[in-house]
Amino acid sequence: MIIVKIGGSVFSDKKGEPENFDHETVRSIAREIAKFYPREDFIIVHGGGSFGHHYAKKYGIREGLPEDWDTANFRRIGFTETHQAMLRANANFIKAFIREGLPAFSVSTSSVFITENGEVVYGDLEIIERLLELRFIPVLFGDVSIDLAKGIDILSGDQIITYLAKMLEPEKVIFLMDVDGIYDGKPGEGGLIQNLPKGDIEALLERLHCTSAGTDVTGGICNKLREAKKIAEHSEVWFVNGKVPGRLGGAIRGDGFGTRINIGI
Amino acid sequence: MIIVKIGGSVFSDKKGEPENFDHETVRSIAREIAKFYPREDFIIVHGGGSFGHHYAKKYGIREGLPEDWDTANFRRIGFTETHQAMLRANANFIKAFIREGLPAFSVSTSSVFITENGEVVYGDLEIIERLLELRFIPVLFGDVSIDLAKGIDILSGDQIITYLAKMLEPEKVIFLMDVDGIYDGKPGEGGLIQNLPKGDIEALLERLHCTSAGTDVTGGICNKLREAKKIAEHSEVWFVNGKVPGRLGGAIRGDGFGTRINIGI
Repeated sequence: MIIVKIGGSVFSDKKGEPENFDHETVRSIAREIAKFYPREDFIIVHGGGSFGHHYAKKYGIREGLPEDWDTANFRRIGFTETHQAMLRANANFIKAFIREGLPAFSVSTSSVFITENGEVVYGDLEIIERLLELRFIPVLFGDVSIDLAKGIDILSGDQIITYLAKMLEPEKVIFLMDVDGIYDGKPGEGGLIQNLPKGDIEALLERLHCTSAGTDVTGGICNKLREAKKIAEHSEVWFVNGKVPGRLGGAIRGDGFGTRINIGI
Repeated sequence: MIIVKIGGSVFSDKKGEPENFDHETVRSIAREIAKFYPREDFIIVHGGGSFGHHYAKKYGIREGLPEDWDTANFRRIGFTETHQAMLRANANFIKAFIREGLPAFSVSTSSVFITENGEVVYGDLEIIERLLELRFIPVLFGDVSIDLAKGIDILSGDQIITYLAKMLEPEKVIFLMDVDGIYDGKPGEGGLIQNLPKGDIEALLERLHCTSAGTDVTGGICNKLREAKKIAEHSEVWFVNGKVPGRLGGAIRGDGFGTRINIGI
């Protein structure tokens, strides 16, 4: 089984109009997956892009539910608005996958997972596992979450993947990004790292100044690397450019262009 | 806690255009609930109306997943199309409730429940219970389901309610219909039954010729009465007209016009 994460910046321009969606790119991603399905099983997880972040920020979802009733109810409304925006992004994915004959099925992240300070602490995977057995392609997404510490929070797509990788032990996890992979420095400046031994991630995190706890709420490169380090305990990890046709297929086959972290090395 | 079922015929004309939605009626329902929230906790469950049934029928979802790959994949696509149609109906509800200041939160039924021949055999209510604790109004809906016997099936709103009533023991379950309640005969012909002792339901089922196993997939009056009989073990049950403003409020207060089944009598 292969888990594919479609980053928000791959299908959407966060700085563009609200809820803009790059249909062409997503269609091309669906086409690549269609070449391997049903020989391979897939789980898709997508980010928020220009859909969820706007609401999450506007309503201060990450600050949790306060005591004051009016502020709390404002946030509750924001919590539901954020989820509805994510469902609209998700509907675009489902449509694109169906068009390519793929039985992609929407699983509402917030109906399944509970977090504690944004990290999954509980998630019943019974339905996702049965969907896979029945040869569906479950599609999850970054979403709001019930949070044990704060009442409510945001659950990022990357966090979902770390949890799924731990529980389901996929053969491979592929992160689609809007750059070619992980760079030794700023993207475009440092060189692209094509083979990243798991043991080198810690040193890379230091070189990239990812030392303090991640403040990048959307899951920037520091968070991605930290999660990748955890995932590499269970599964091979790839970072490839989701905007360039063929790169996803290369990672699925195993001979693609991008950054590869071998399992357990 | 009060569970309100909004029947498909209340918010939608099943014989009308695909995906027609009676915004005015739903707005009026949201307004009545807003008079009691947050004093009362609510769970809302809505039916399919002109949204889900069309796809469920077209793709033969209730027939399950066959061996043949092509037929099975046609049904898988139908399964996901049906869910997406129900999410569109659900989005209309969420919007109407938010407009009245109610923090209604969409819970995807198919992400939570597993059925066996259309009856719930598994459903993790952790998230629904926590949503209630945090003063959200969870909104569920009739949906497709992973089914232990058939692979896939339909889970009706009424079945969800039977399960929720058993597990959560609400104070009251209110079914909104497009008629005034349960009649002793055909609606409009027999007289409206205002007080229905639980012990009389069996005899009424016989008088209404509901003897054989229900063939009405959409949950007609026979199915409703059978479910009501089970629910009345745990909770007071009301059947009221959801199209007439004030009737829902009457049932919530307990002095309304419609059919009332007292708990355990």
